[in-house]
Amino acid sequence: MPRTFVKQLTVPGTVVEQVFQVPAKSLRTSRKGSLFITARLRDRTGEVPAVMWDATEALFAAIPQDGYALVQGRVDTYNDAPQVVIEAMRPARDDEVTLADFLPTGPGDPDVHLARLKEILQEVRRPALRALLDAVWADDTLLASLKRAPAAERLHHAYLGGLLEHTLGVAEAARKLCEHYHRLDRDLLLVGVLWHDLGKTRELAYAESFGYTDAGKLVGHIVQGVLMLQERIAEVRSGGTEFPEELAHLLRHLVLAHHGEHAFGSPKLPMTAEALALHHLDNLDAKLHAFWRNVDDDADPNRRWTAWNKMFSGALFKGFDELDLEDEDAAE
Amino acid sequence: MPRTFVKQLTVPGTVVEQVFQVPAKSLRTSRKGSLFITARLRDRTGEVPAVMWDATEALFAAIPQDGYALVQGRVDTYNDAPQVVIEAMRPARDDEVTLADFLPTGPGDPDVHLARLKEILQEVRRPALRALLDAVWADDTLLASLKRAPAAERLHHAYLGGLLEHTLGVAEAARKLCEHYHRLDRDLLLVGVLWHDLGKTRELAYAESFGYTDAGKLVGHIVQGVLMLQERIAEVRSGGTEFPEELAHLLRHLVLAHHGEHAFGSPKLPMTAEALALHHLDNLDAKLHAFWRNVDDDADPNRRWTAWNKMFSGALFKGFDELDLEDEDAAE
Amino acid sequence: MPRTFVKQLTVPGTVVEQVFQVPAKSLRTSRKGSLFITARLRDRTGEVPAVMWDATEALFAAIPQDGYALVQGRVDTYNDAPQVVIEAMRPARDDEVTLADFLPTGPGDPDVHLARLKEILQEVRRPALRALLDAVWADDTLLASLKRAPAAERLHHAYLGGLLEHTLGVAEAARKLCEHYHRLDRDLLLVGVLWHDLGKTRELAYAESFGYTDAGKLVGHIVQGVLMLQERIAEVRSGGTEFPEELAHLLRHLVLAHHGEHAFGSPKLPMTAEALALHHLDNLDAKLHAFWRNVDDDADPNRRWTAWNKMFSGALFKGFDELDLEDEDAAE
Amino acid sequence: MPRTFVKQLTVPGTVVEQVFQVPAKSLRTSRKGSLFITARLRDRTGEVPAVMWDATEALFAAIPQDGYALVQGRVDTYNDAPQVVIEAMRPARDDEVTLADFLPTGPGDPDVHLARLKEILQEVRRPALRALLDAVWADDTLLASLKRAPAAERLHHAYLGGLLEHTLGVAEAARKLCEHYHRLDRDLLLVGVLWHDLGKTRELAYAESFGYTDAGKLVGHIVQGVLMLQERIAEVRSGGTEFPEELAHLLRHLVLAHHGEHAFGSPKLPMTAEALALHHLDNLDAKLHAFWRNVDDDADPNRRWTAWNKMFSGALFKGFDELDLEDEDAAE
Amino acid sequence: MPRTFVKQLTVPGTVVEQVFQVPAKSLRTSRKGSLFITARLRDRTGEVPAVMWDATEALFAAIPQDGYALVQGRVDTYNDAPQVVIEAMRPARDDEVTLADFLPTGPGDPDVHLARLKEILQEVRRPALRALLDAVWADDTLLASLKRAPAAERLHHAYLGGLLEHTLGVAEAARKLCEHYHRLDRDLLLVGVLWHDLGKTRELAYAESFGYTDAGKLVGHIVQGVLMLQERIAEVRSGGTEFPEELAHLLRHLVLAHHGEHAFGSPKLPMTAEALALHHLDNLDAKLHAFWRNVDDDADPNRRWTAWNKMFSGALFKGFDELDLEDEDAAE
Amino acid sequence: MPRTFVKQLTVPGTVVEQVFQVPAKSLRTSRKGSLFITARLRDRTGEVPAVMWDATEALFAAIPQDGYALVQGRVDTYNDAPQVVIEAMRPARDDEVTLADFLPTGPGDPDVHLARLKEILQEVRRPALRALLDAVWADDTLLASLKRAPAAERLHHAYLGGLLEHTLGVAEAARKLCEHYHRLDRDLLLVGVLWHDLGKTRELAYAESFGYTDAGKLVGHIVQGVLMLQERIAEVRSGGTEFPEELAHLLRHLVLAHHGEHAFGSPKLPMTAEALALHHLDNLDAKLHAFWRNVDDDADPNRRWTAWNKMFSGALFKGFDELDLEDEDAAE
Repeated sequence: MPRTFVKQLTVPGTVVEQVFQVPAKSLRTSRKGSLFITARLRDRTGEVPAVMWDATEALFAAIPQDGYALVQGRVDTYNDAPQVVIEAMRPARDDEVTLADFLPTGPGDPDVHLARLKEILQEVRRPALRALLDAVWADDTLLASLKRAPAAERLHHAYLGGLLEHTLGVAEAARKLCEHYHRLDRDLLLVGVLWHDLGKTRELAYAESFGYTDAGKLVGHIVQGVLMLQERIAEVRSGGTEFPEELAHLLRHLVLAHHGEHAFGSPKLPMTAEALALHHLDNLDAKLHAFWRNVDDDADPNRRWTAWNKMFSGALFKGFDELDLEDEDAAE
Repeated sequence: MPRTFVKQLTVPGTVVEQVFQVPAKSLRTSRKGSLFITARLRDRTGEVPAVMWDATEALFAAIPQDGYALVQGRVDTYNDAPQVVIEAMRPARDDEVTLADFLPTGPGDPDVHLARLKEILQEVRRPALRALLDAVWADDTLLASLKRAPAAERLHHAYLGGLLEHTLGVAEAARKLCEHYHRLDRDLLLVGVLWHDLGKTRELAYAESFGYTDAGKLVGHIVQGVLMLQERIAEVRSGGTEFPEELAHLLRHLVLAHHGEHAFGSPKLPMTAEALALHHLDNLDAKLHAFWRNVDDDADPNRRWTAWNKMFSGALFKGFDELDLEDEDAAE
Repeated sequence: MPRTFVKQLTVPGTVVEQVFQVPAKSLRTSRKGSLFITARLRDRTGEVPAVMWDATEALFAAIPQDGYALVQGRVDTYNDAPQVVIEAMRPARDDEVTLADFLPTGPGDPDVHLARLKEILQEVRRPALRALLDAVWADDTLLASLKRAPAAERLHHAYLGGLLEHTLGVAEAARKLCEHYHRLDRDLLLVGVLWHDLGKTRELAYAESFGYTDAGKLVGHIVQGVLMLQERIAEVRSGGTEFPEELAHLLRHLVLAHHGEHAFGSPKLPMTAEALALHHLDNLDAKLHAFWRNVDDDADPNRRWTAWNKMFSGALFKGFDELDLEDEDAAE
Repeated sequence: MPRTFVKQLTVPGTVVEQVFQVPAKSLRTSRKGSLFITARLRDRTGEVPAVMWDATEALFAAIPQDGYALVQGRVDTYNDAPQVVIEAMRPARDDEVTLADFLPTGPGDPDVHLARLKEILQEVRRPALRALLDAVWADDTLLASLKRAPAAERLHHAYLGGLLEHTLGVAEAARKLCEHYHRLDRDLLLVGVLWHDLGKTRELAYAESFGYTDAGKLVGHIVQGVLMLQERIAEVRSGGTEFPEELAHLLRHLVLAHHGEHAFGSPKLPMTAEALALHHLDNLDAKLHAFWRNVDDDADPNRRWTAWNKMFSGALFKGFDELDLEDEDAAE
Repeated sequence: MPRTFVKQLTVPGTVVEQVFQVPAKSLRTSRKGSLFITARLRDRTGEVPAVMWDATEALFAAIPQDGYALVQGRVDTYNDAPQVVIEAMRPARDDEVTLADFLPTGPGDPDVHLARLKEILQEVRRPALRALLDAVWADDTLLASLKRAPAAERLHHAYLGGLLEHTLGVAEAARKLCEHYHRLDRDLLLVGVLWHDLGKTRELAYAESFGYTDAGKLVGHIVQGVLMLQERIAEVRSGGTEFPEELAHLLRHLVLAHHGEHAFGSPKLPMTAEALALHHLDNLDAKLHAFWRNVDDDADPNRRWTAWNKMFSGALFKGFDELDLEDEDAAE
Repeated sequence: MPRTFVKQLTVPGTVVEQVFQVPAKSLRTSRKGSLFITARLRDRTGEVPAVMWDATEALFAAIPQDGYALVQGRVDTYNDAPQVVIEAMRPARDDEVTLADFLPTGPGDPDVHLARLKEILQEVRRPALRALLDAVWADDTLLASLKRAPAAERLHHAYLGGLLEHTLGVAEAARKLCEHYHRLDRDLLLVGVLWHDLGKTRELAYAESFGYTDAGKLVGHIVQGVLMLQERIAEVRSGGTEFPEELAHLLRHLVLAHHGEHAFGSPKLPMTAEALALHHLDNLDAKLHAFWRNVDDDADPNRRWTAWNKMFSGALFKGFDELDLEDEDAAE
C-alpha cells in the first residue's frame, strides 16, 4: 500500500496503517483517571498531532522517542486542524522503515546528475587532473555518499542528493562563465567545483536525520576536503602518474578559499582568478536555490513577500503577478 | 609626427617635440647662482623626470602646474634612469592637446562594445522595457558619455570606455547564466545590468583627469542612476507607452541593491533573484578584471605574486609557469 | 454609545456591543462534543481573550482572521484576568469600523503640529526653497499623509501622526541649535528636516495596521524621499521659479545622509555641516522619544529599570524618586 | 619688538631676531669641505626651512632638538619658497620663550568663556549640585587648567583653551535643547556637560606641546573625570552638605557613557535621557567644530572639497558660492 | 528535618513540608466551578510544578509572587513528570528561609579559598602594596562580600562564593605563570588579580537572587573597582605609608584593561606586560570554568556535544570515552 | 677577522673588509661628469649608507641588488651620521657569506631549546601519541627546520630559531598551567603545543630573508600543520601502532582552532578545553614576547612609552623606574 504522507492527511476518516517517526510523546491522565498518550507523528512532509485513548505505561515506554513506530488509526479534526486518533501502535522493525520517507529528498535523479557532472568534467585536459578524476569515478563508496549527502543541514539544498545537485549547478554555471571569461583556467575551476564541498560527505550525518558528525564539528568540511584530496593525490601518484605539488597547492587553495572570507570559515582569501570565480558561483548557486525554495515553500501564498529570512536578512519578494510574461514557458 | 610615449623614451639621444602634462615643477638655484627648472612630464603611459638649464622666473611662471606644455628636448640618463633635458618649453594651446594621450584608454573599441550591448538587449521582450531601451539608444549625449566614462576612478576598468566595457562584460555573463538558471527573469536582469552603473556617467569626472563630480560626492552613482531612470520612464510614459509603477520599483531595486551590502553603499539589500544575480555578476566581473589588470601590470615580472593589493587584502598569485597548458590558445 | 476600550474592560459583568479586531480565533470541541470558539479581541489599547460557547462551523468560518467583528457579550474573569464571553458575533461592515480605534494614536493634534511646522518653516528665505515649500503646502494629499503616517513601524513615534510629531520635534530642536551655531545654514537645515523622512508616507502602510509597502521594501523611504523631491522641484521649475541644481544636490544629500552611517542604510555619509546636524538631531529626537515612551509604558512600575531594550542594548533607567525636584513643574 | 610669525615670513629681505622652536636640524659638509647647518624653524603658525653657512660642530651641538633657539637672520627664497638664512643662533633662555607663540591658541578669550559657563551653570537648582559647583569655582588650579587645556591632541578644539571652548559650546547647546525637551533634567545635564571632559586636564599634556600624560594613557580622561568627581564630592560632604550616592551614580554615568559606544572607550552605554542627550551634543559640537576648522584651514581655497579627512571618512563640502545668501550677516 | 531538594522530588508519594520560592502562581476555575491554584516551586536545584485543589482567592492572594511559602504536600506524577500536590500553604517567615537553599552555591569552602588567597598574596614585597593588602584583610565587610558574591550573573562562577573561587583560580594560574615568565612583575600581577573583579561585590546583587545593582548598571564593576582602590589607597596614605601615584596608575590600568578590548567594556587596552597577562589568565579561567560547568551540567549525558552555547558560539565537545586514560587519577 | 657589525660602525676611520648585503644602489653623475655610486649596506644589525667615488658602469652592474658584496673601505661621517666610503667592491662568493650574519637570530641556543622541549614531551603517556612524537624526533630534516625557522615574518619571535623558542615557551607555560587545572588533558595539550605552529616550517621562507612560500600563501601554516600531522600518523600506523581516528580529530582541532577566531584565520573555534587553553597560551606567549622585544628595542631610551605599535593598537608602557624593586635579580 503506498504511503499517505502527512501533508495528505487532511480528510477526516482516512484510515492509516504505516510507519511514522515520533519526535514527541507524552503520557497523561484524564480527569477520570484513565491514561492516554498524546504524540506528534512525522515524515518528510511534516508533522501531525496524534492521540491514543486507553494507553498503558508499558505501551508508552515501548515507543522510542525520535524513533519509528508502526501506527494504525484514522484521521480526525481537533481545533480546526487534522489529528490522528491512534488505535494501535508498536515500534517499527528496521526493514519496515523506508528512510527516504523521512528524510527530505530533492526534485532530481542523482544518477542523472552524476552522469551530467562526469560529462562536464570530461572537458578537463591535464593528465594529472584526469587521473585524479578517474580515482574519484572509480570510488563507489565516495560516489554513493556524493549522491546521497545533502549540501547543508538547513540553509540550502538541505535534502538527500542536495550536495550533488549543488555541485552540478555550480559546474554548469562555471562552464557557461568560462565561455565568456577566456582567461579562467577551466581545468582548475571545474576540478575545484567538484571538490569544493566534497568534505561535506564526511562533515554531515544524513543516515537518520541531518546533523554534523564529530569530525564535521572538530575539523569541518573545508579541511576534510583537503584531506580527501591528499588521499586521492597519493593514490594517483602511487598509480604512476606525476602530480605536481604546485597543482596540489592550487587545488587546496580553491577548497580553502571558497567561502571567500575569514568570517565564513575560510582560512585563506581567494588569491587566484579561479578561486574568485568559484567563491562567487558557489555563493550565487546556494543563494538562488535558497531564494526559490523559500519562495515556493512560503506558508502564505497570498502574500507577495515571504516571512523574514535570516540567510538574506529580510523578506524575499515573490514578484508582481501582473508583470508575468504571458508566454514565458512557450518562449523558453 | 606620431607621439613617442613616455614608456618609449628609453634611448639616450632620442629627440622629442610634443605636448606633455606637467604634474610637478620646481625652480632652483645652482651653486653658481643660475636658475634651473626640474619638472616631471607625463602622458597616459607614465612619468619621466626632466631638467631645463638656464631657465627664467617668467618662463617658470608661464608653465601651468597640472596643465599642458609643448616641450622640445632630448632624452638623457640620470641615476641610471631616463630623463628629458628640455631645450625649450611653452604652454600648449588647447588644439595641440589630444586628451586621449593623457587619459588611460582601454583595449577595446567603444563602438564595437556598444553595438554588442544593443544586440544583447534585443532579447528583452516586455514592451515597456523595449520602450525604455529605445529612449536610451536615441539619446546621443548619454551614449557618448557611456562610451567615454571609466567604470571607476581607480579600482577596476579605470580608463576611458571602462564603464561600457564593464557593463558589456556583466551583460555577457548574465546572458550565459540565464541559460542555466531558467527562473531568472532575463528581461529584468539585462535591463538591470545596463542601468546598474549608468549613474557613473554623472558621478565621475573624466574630461581632463578622473575624479568625482560634486553630484557624485553629494548624491552618488546609485541614486543618480535611479534619478536617470525616473527621467527616462517619464519620457516613455509621455510617449504613450504604459510603464507600470511595479516595474519601476523592480528596476530601482536592482540599481539600489547592486552593491549587495549596506557597508558598500547600497541602501537596500537584494531581495529578488535578479538583484542577487546582478550583485554577484557585477562583483565578479569587477574583481576578475582588476585581478588580471593587476597581474599584467605588476612591476616585477620575475615574481609569482603581485605586490600587496588593497582591493583583495593580499598579494595576487600569477600562476606557476610550469603548469601552463601548452596549446591553450590553439584549443580555444 | 461611546466605545469601552479593551484596557477598560476590567469589571466583571460589563456589557459590550461594539467592533473588535480579531487577531486569533480557534474552533474547539468540548469533552461533551459541543463546539466552542476561543478568540482574542483587540483595539488600539490592547488585547483580551474571549470565548463563545455553542458555536457553529459556519459562524466560525464567517469571522475574518485579522479582520473586524461586531461583538455582543459581557466581561467575565478567567485565570485571574478578564475575558469576554461572547453571546453573538458577526463580521463588521466597513462603515461600522472607526480605524482610529484600532491604530495607535499619538498624544498631540496633527493640525496643531502642522500649523507650528509651517510657522517654523516661514523662516526660510531663499526664493527657490520658499517655492518648494509652497508646493508642499498646496498638496492636500501629501499633507493628509504627513498628518496620518507613523514615523516607524515599531521603534519610535509608532502611531498615527507620529511622522509629523517627529518632524516637528526635529524642527524645533534645529531652530534652537541654529541660535547657537550661527554658521549653520538655517534654510537648508530646516528644509532638510521637513524632507528627511517624507518618503515614509510612501514606505509605510498605515491604513489597517502598520507595515511596509512593496515600494517601501524595494526602494525605501530614503530614496523615495529623493524621488518626491524630484517631483516637487520639477513642479517649481515648471511654475517659472529657478531652482539651481546645486541646491537640489544639497537637499538630496541631506535626505540621503541623514542615517549617518552606511550600516543604517544611508548611501552617503554626512559631508556638510547641515547634514551632520540633521543626523544628530534626528537620532536624538527619535532616541529621547523612544526612551520616554519605554519608561512610561514599562510593564512593572515598581522597578527602577525597564525591561531589556533592543534599541538601546540595555535596560533604561527611570530615575531615583528621591532625587526629584519638588516644584519642577512650577519652576518651568 | 612684536613677533613676526612664520606665516608672515614671505618677503625676501625681512630681518628676524626672535625665538623659534627647532623640530629638525642637520650638520652637513659642502663639497668644499666646510660645515653648514640645515634646520627647520617653527612657531604656532607653521614651519620654515633654514640654512646657516659656516657653522661649527660646537654650535650645532648646542642647539637643542625640539627645543628653543634665539635666531638672527633674514628671509630668502629657495625652490620657490621662503627660507631663513641664519646669521647667528643660540639656545633661548626660559624667560625669552613665550609659550603662547608656540602652542596653537583658539579664537576666544578663556576668561570670557569661563564667565559665561559659570553664568549658565547658575541655573542648577539642587543644593548638592550647587555645592559641587562651588567647590569647582573655588579651585583656582583646576580653573587654570580648564582655561588652558586643549580638548584633544589633534581631532577637535586642539589648541590652548579648546577644552573650555568645547565645554561651553556643549553647555550652550544643552541649554537650548532643554527649552524644547522639557523632560530633560537640566540640573543633571548641565553638570554632566561641565564634567564630561574635565579629566582631560589630567589626560593631556600641554605645557610645551600637546600629548598624553602617563596617567592619560594608563587611565584615560573618562575614568580620571570620575576620580576628580570623587574628590570634589568628598569635599562637599566634608563641608557639611549632603550629597546622595544616587546623585553621584547618575553623574558618574554621564561621564562614563558620554562616548556613546564601547568602541569609543565608554565602559557604559547611555541609559538615562540626560546621558543620551550629552552624548549627542558632545559629538555634534566636536564634529561641527572640526568641520568648520577643516574647511577654513584647507590648503587649497580654489577647491570646493577639503582633502580626505579621517575623522569624517571623506572629503568635506565647503559649499557652493553661488548659493550664498547675500545679506546673511545683516540678517542675523 | 533536612531539606529534600527539588532535584530529589522524584518518588511519587514523598511527603514534603518545607519552604519553597514561588516564581509563578495562577488561580483557575475548574469546569465544575471550583477554584484551584497551579504554581511553580523552586529552590537552588531547580523547579517543579505544583497544584492545589480547593483553593480560595484569599489564600491565593496571600502567597507572594517570587517570595517564599511554607508548603505541605506530597509528590505525584503529571504528564510523565513529578508534580507536587499541595495540601496546605502559607507565606514563610524570614527566620524560616535559609537563603543558601535558594541561591546556587559552589563546590568549595570560601574560608579555605580566602586563606589560600592570602597565602599567595604574602609573596607581594613592596611595602605600599603590602599596606594596601593589610587594609583589605582588615575590612571584614569587604571580606564577607568577597566570600559571598558570585563572579557573574550567569556566564561563569555564577553561584555564591564564585567571585572568590574565580579570583583564587586566576591567582594560582598567575603564580604558575610567573615561574616561567620571569620578567612579569609578580607584585603588580598578584595585586591586580585580587582587584580585577572586586567591584563585582558592588555591581552584583546576591541577597535573594542574582542581578545587577543600580550602581552596577550605571557605573559597572570595572570603575567601581577603581573607586574602591581609591578608598583603600587613601586609607593607606592616611595611615602614614607612602603610596606612589605611579603605582596607583599601574593598578588602575590593570583593573581598567582586564577585559582586553573596548567591545567588552574596557575603557583602556592592556599596555603593560602584567595587564596582558591578567587579561588572558582572567579570560582563560572564566572560559575553562564555564566549559567544564556546561559539560557537567549538560541535559543529555548520552551525547558527546553539549547544546549550542552562546558564550562559546558553538556546542562544546565532551570528549571521546574511548580515549580516556585509565589510571589518570592514580597518576596525578 | 671577526665581523664588525653595522651597529658598531660608529667610529670615523674604522677600516672594513667584509661582506654586506646591498638592498639599494644607484649610479650617479657628479657636476664634473664623473660617475659615483651611492648604496646602502646591511647586515642583521641594521643598515648604513655608503658612497664609492670614481665608479664605473661595469662595476655598478656587477653588484647584485639585494645580493651580497665584499666591500673594502672605511667609516666616515655624513649629515651627522656614519657612512662607509667604499674603496673596492665585488660580488661575494657563496662560501664567503655567513647567512647568520644577515638574518636576525634569537638569544638562545636551539639545541638546548630542543632538548628541553623533548624533555617536557616525555610526560606524554598515551602510546599512540608517544609513537607520533618518536616519528618527529626521528626526522632530522624536520628538526633542522624547527630549529631554524622563525615564528613569524615580523610580529613576534621573528628571528632564526624563533619558532622553536616560541613552541618551548608555550610548552613551559602549558605544563605550569596543568599543575593548576587538573582536568586539562596534558597529553593532548602538550602534543597540540608542539604541533600548533609546525606548519610554519613550510609556510615561511627563511633561507636568505624572511617571507612566505607559495605554499604558505596558498595554503597557510594551519592547514599545512594538519597535512604534516596526516603524514606522521600514516607513518605511525604503517609502523604497526594503532592511532585512533578520534585522537587524530582532536589533534587536528587543536591545530585548526589555535588562532581562536575566524577573523584570525582559524577555520574552527575552540570547542575543547585543551583547544581553549592552547589558544590563550599561544596568544599570551606571542604577546609577551613581542611586548618585551618592543620595549627593549625601542628607539628612544629616554621615553617611558614605545612608539605606537600596530600589534597592540597603542604605545607600550616601559615602566616607572622609581618603582623598580631594588634587589629583584637577587631575589629570583
